[in-house]
Amino acid sequence: MNPTTFMKSLQLKKLHIRDSFWSSYIRLVRDVVVPYQWEALNDRIEGAEPSYAIRNMKIAAGLEQGSFQGMVFQDSDIAKWLEAVSYLLESESDPELERVTDDLIDIVAKAQQKDGYLNTYFTIKEPNERWSNLAECHELYCAGHMIEAGVAYYQATGKRKLLDVCCRLADCIDSVFGPEPGQIQGYDGHQEVELALVKLYKATGNEKYLQLSKFFLDERGQEPSFYEKELKQRKGKVHFPFLDIASDRSYSQAHLPVRLQTTAEGHAVRAVYMCTGMADVAAETGDEQLLEACRRLWSNIVEKRMYITGAIGSMAHGESFSLDYDLPNDTAYAETCASIGLILFAQRMLLIEPRSEYADVLEKALYNTVISGMSRDGKRFFYVNPLEVWPDACGKNHTFSHVKPQRQEWFGCACCPPNIARLLASLNRYIVSVKDRTIYTHLYIGGELECELDGQAIHFTQQSNFPWEGDVRFEFGGEQEANFTMALRIPDWCPGAKIRINGNFVSFEQTVVDGYAHFTRTWRPGDIIELSLPMPVKRMKSHPLVRETAGKTALQRGPIVYCVEEADNGPNLHHIALDEASEFIVAYEPELLGGLQTITAKGVKRLSDEWGNQLYKADERVQNVPIAVKFIPYFAWANRGRGEMAVWVRE
Amino acid sequence: MNPTTFMKSLQLKKLHIRDSFWSSYIRLVRDVVVPYQWEALNDRIEGAEPSYAIRNMKIAAGLEQGSFQGMVFQDSDIAKWLEAVSYLLESESDPELERVTDDLIDIVAKAQQKDGYLNTYFTIKEPNERWSNLAECHELYCAGHMIEAGVAYYQATGKRKLLDVCCRLADCIDSVFGPEPGQIQGYDGHQEVELALVKLYKATGNEKYLQLSKFFLDERGQEPSFYEKELKQRKGKVHFPFLDIASDRSYSQAHLPVRLQTTAEGHAVRAVYMCTGMADVAAETGDEQLLEACRRLWSNIVEKRMYITGAIGSMAHGESFSLDYDLPNDTAYAETCASIGLILFAQRMLLIEPRSEYADVLEKALYNTVISGMSRDGKRFFYVNPLEVWPDACGKNHTFSHVKPQRQEWFGCACCPPNIARLLASLNRYIVSVKDRTIYTHLYIGGELECELDGQAIHFTQQSNFPWEGDVRFEFGGEQEANFTMALRIPDWCPGAKIRINGNFVSFEQTVVDGYAHFTRTWRPGDIIELSLPMPVKRMKSHPLVRETAGKTALQRGPIVYCVEEADNGPNLHHIALDEASEFIVAYEPELLGGLQTITAKGVKRLSDEWGNQLYKADERVQNVPIAVKFIPYFAWANRGRGEMAVWVRE
Repeated sequence: MNPTTFMKSLQLKKLHIRDSFWSSYIRLVRDVVVPYQWEALNDRIEGAEPSYAIRNMKIAAGLEQGSFQGMVFQDSDIAKWLEAVSYLLESESDPELERVTDDLIDIVAKAQQKDGYLNTYFTIKEPNERWSNLAECHELYCAGHMIEAGVAYYQATGKRKLLDVCCRLADCIDSVFGPEPGQIQGYDGHQEVELALVKLYKATGNEKYLQLSKFFLDERGQEPSFYEKELKQRKGKVHFPFLDIASDRSYSQAHLPVRLQTTAEGHAVRAVYMCTGMADVAAETGDEQLLEACRRLWSNIVEKRMYITGAIGSMAHGESFSLDYDLPNDTAYAETCASIGLILFAQRMLLIEPRSEYADVLEKALYNTVISGMSRDGKRFFYVNPLEVWPDACGKNHTFSHVKPQRQEWFGCACCPPNIARLLASLNRYIVSVKDRTIYTHLYIGGELECELDGQAIHFTQQSNFPWEGDVRFEFGGEQEANFTMALRIPDWCPGAKIRINGNFVSFEQTVVDGYAHFTRTWRPGDIIELSLPMPVKRMKSHPLVRETAGKTALQRGPIVYCVEEADNGPNLHHIALDEASEFIVAYEPELLGGLQTITAKGVKRLSDEWGNQLYKADERVQNVPIAVKFIPYFAWANRGRGEMAVWVRE
Repeated sequence: MNPTTFMKSLQLKKLHIRDSFWSSYIRLVRDVVVPYQWEALNDRIEGAEPSYAIRNMKIAAGLEQGSFQGMVFQDSDIAKWLEAVSYLLESESDPELERVTDDLIDIVAKAQQKDGYLNTYFTIKEPNERWSNLAECHELYCAGHMIEAGVAYYQATGKRKLLDVCCRLADCIDSVFGPEPGQIQGYDGHQEVELALVKLYKATGNEKYLQLSKFFLDERGQEPSFYEKELKQRKGKVHFPFLDIASDRSYSQAHLPVRLQTTAEGHAVRAVYMCTGMADVAAETGDEQLLEACRRLWSNIVEKRMYITGAIGSMAHGESFSLDYDLPNDTAYAETCASIGLILFAQRMLLIEPRSEYADVLEKALYNTVISGMSRDGKRFFYVNPLEVWPDACGKNHTFSHVKPQRQEWFGCACCPPNIARLLASLNRYIVSVKDRTIYTHLYIGGELECELDGQAIHFTQQSNFPWEGDVRFEFGGEQEANFTMALRIPDWCPGAKIRINGNFVSFEQTVVDGYAHFTRTWRPGDIIELSLPMPVKRMKSHPLVRETAGKTALQRGPIVYCVEEADNGPNLHHIALDEASEFIVAYEPELLGGLQTITAKGVKRLSDEWGNQLYKADERVQNVPIAVKFIPYFAWANRGRGEMAVWVRE
């Protein structure tokens, strides 16, 4: 493993997205989501729960009077917004947005205490209780998000003010936590600071941040339990009395030292944020044991605990993983933030060892669960992304009390919307990576790339009509030729890829390593690679040990997982069964929700007439009528009013 | 409607059960359950949570020192035990048991306060808070169970001591509650006193108890909310802070006046206890409006909210009904007590209007859910009777945290075990009823009946090998002939009943009214009726609007619903599908759990080999192998170790 891997990838930051599918999402983030969230952070959205986040920051800064309100981790919403804004400013200047952001950063800087401490909850409400409840109170989590923002804003604008705030904050944390007597040997209940400290290390070169990250990772799960110790020290005081965070150790992955963990347990977001930090530290330190733990946890997630949509978290209790192959469709938690965390983890693994399985999952989570999390107008959001919904039962059967059949406005605990914003605003960072004179293409998203590789200036454009069509075109530009390897991902969903270079089909099967077709040559301006990735409709089946999908099929085409909705197929979706031999009609419908490719298949629907009042009947022949079953992309569900939805259909 | 209906049926109390199936259960109640529960009430079961019930009673009686422990409704366990014992003593004398019981009654009498009040929680712990929290604290519920016990013990033994205690208690309640100024216009959070007061009225002839029952029923659900009023009066103090009983009005059916309710809502046990009380009052007063409400609620339950096993309560939250056709198999609450309550409701409706649909449901709940609630050795019990269990997920996925894959010992909140005991001990009261010179046979349980009808002494025996075989034989005994009608229930599961009288087939189809075949004649000693009820195996289907069973079949034979278990069919029951055209082999296996009739069918099982590590695969042909699928009666599940179980199987 090469410790400079990630540094090299940073040279790729001149990647501008110009994509028929994603540019409009990024535009939505810029024009709608970020402005809307700014209003939300300032408590100016009528009808939505106030955020109080900026008000808390102003109170802590001494600019306003009042008491802290909102969740204990409310500061993180400001940080995520700052981070999203940074990425937007990086790709396109916006002086007004930058001015507003600088003003906010001034407030944040004023809210920082003299010793570097920064957290409005404890500063305002419990100034003497700092660092007394790591298990529940998210101090390091909030710090981590602010550090991510500080690094991103510095990289985007060159302005150091927020970065300096973050360095002082990290220095404060470094003085409080560590192996020395008088320091706390502990770790946060919600992982985040680990990955953030690695970013700060890479932005500043200050190795102590990397060491601190490693310290937090290695403390987690040690005996005796840190949570129990601090619980005793604060005499049993708890912040969330209905939860049991301090004693339910697997909830925050503190049940075992991280290097010994083999299954993804507990709160799904925490688990994948932790894995991301582990991969970051492994990449920078060459720690093979840590990397091996990452690989094990990755395999457990994607081979046994992930929905076909790239969603994770099988139960509402603890927003958590449950057990291998337990993937209920209707009671799923499947949090948007958890899939974003899975994408972060996948990205880090790609930087360490480019294997297409990481990119396959990254793509799956991105094109399905992440954008399911946001309405097509950018104003409403899902926390929970179930794979089957019966709206009548939501609110009536409390098993589904976490499931909303419609996207909601800004939430009281608003982790998902700003997380979507920062991911989409930084999407250019997930498309390609560089390792050892090789440029790996992970996502087929159109855009323009400029980078340096061993002193050679490289420039190329990528064009595609993904996710609807599988033809991808790379054209090399610039002024001079360059010798390097292009490694093109062959997606797992693609049965018969073809590649042409400068118009000539090339045989590439023998060049495929870890899912990437490799072409090493001297590339000249004007060279063209055409990648043709057929996208037949695929009948997907689950592993035999998944109970909830026994006898059921899901449709996938390219990276897109499909679903049936009541809006197209009427109520009682459970009456539908797909013909085993059905052909599929794929059609692009430009008028449908901004343009979607739909699939129509042959199936049958049960006739429910004339059954009568009896709840159970003997030897009843089920009467079916042939119908055309219409599927739309899963991510576009719940944009046409309240109705049933299902990804898995009986066959 | 005839107000004396029920009084007449009481003349049937000389019905002794001698039945190949039920006698052993009743013997189990006598020899194991009641003695075990006596030990439990006295906190002498090693490894089980203590009950504290008798200790509380002794403290309230001034016989011991200490503080109240256990649930606020702990007294009711004593009452249910006393009631069960009464029924046992009624059918078979047991001087030692009667002596122990008399001693306990002495303690209960001493625990009663001078004004008739009887409740150990408030007497010991909050003497100044009597009647201040009806919504949560079960004072009237406990009183109701003690009244049922007092009536039963008096009927069994002729001893009035406990009955007198109960009359004083009821008089105390009658003085506190009522429409007059200074009285409380309220009702209990958990219905029970309503049906108990009608029993007390019928045992004593004192009509004020009937009026008080009607008062409680009619207060429920009136505006403004009584719960909110008393909550305000006690300044917001709540007993169960995690629940929301006072404001979740439908939880205790207080969302509407009972006469206006059309759907079964909230806590399932409370709902059916309420319906039982409503039917009782309707029967005694001729209140047609109340009876009509009973009919509506009955229809809603059995046509839209009942499992095929006669279980009710679709969700753990509030142990409640949810919505029409919402009948999830794995997350069901399906409490044993709720099915017992449904049996009480059915029995009361049968007394008012003998319609076989009431008996069909009574039989279904009895032969399936109620005896599923108890292990075959009488020592372990289910609260929750799911229709599908994956034991690995219990304890890991909290959606199933209420589901136990194995029966448990006595519970801290021990409503179900004593409720099973009192039902089985009084099973003779559910077999036949009398109305207008007609004897209705509801359950085909063997035994001997003596009664008087219009001055005629009637005696007959019933013999059957139910539930395994459908041949039933009635033989008239006694000394003299008698003229009356025999009305024999033709069960809904029976496709081709045949009847012979004294050896000759009789055509009865034209005599069937409301599901009973009627024979009016002068019956002579030695007359024999032979009822032949074929029991073919039936493939049951659910109403099309039930989602969870779409594409699935359950097997039923006679009243018995079957299930597949891992013990017979290996793990991964979701891999099994039944052949649509399979024949069934029915076999009695005398060695299996005390003797069970099993069904073997043709089916297929998915091969799970060679799938590999991928969680999802495209266009995978599912490989099936033919297998013999073995079904056992649902009630006998979970008696052979921990394993999967399912009632509904794919077809």
